[in-house]
Amino acid sequence: MPVFMDVHRNMRGITADELREAHRQDLEVQGTEHVEFKRAWADPESGMVFCLAEGPDADAVRRVHALAGHPADEVYPVTLEV
Amino acid sequence: MPVFMDVHRNMRGITADELREAHRQDLEVQGTEHVEFKRAWADPESGMVFCLAEGPDADAVRRVHALAGHPADEVYPVTLEV
Repeated sequence: MPVFMDVHRNMRGITADELREAHRQDLEVQGTEHVEFKRAWADPESGMVFCLAEGPDADAVRRVHALAGHPADEVYPVTLEV
Repeated sequence: MPVFMDVHRNMRGITADELREAHRQDLEVQGTEHVEFKRAWADPESGMVFCLAEGPDADAVRRVHALAGHPADEVYPVTLEV
């Protein structure tokens, strides 16, 4: 399954609880899109959040985040990994 | 140890071998800065590369990538993770 890294740029001040809750919402709605969110990393100071997911395509990843109420600013198909 | 996500924006066309070699160069020089590069994900089409590392601070991460010959465009302290 293709792997995607997506980026959110406006989550300044996000707390650990809010990140957990946002991730929980992704997990709750991802099934209909055959997406599996794996991990997420946040920098509350800059507002940057990076999410790693597997899914059929970038649009499916976008739809899950949008459905969950926090649309991604960018989604990249990361076809290489070390 | 603090965790960092860094971003490279100009690696369009990077191959699997080149990503592996870039990562190997980071591992080779990271010891002097007490940095440990964990994983990296690349999108050859957009040229975006994301690297996950542990280290004492963002400047140490920057120095390792610079020493290895591929300076990062951005380095974010990702203090939250799910």
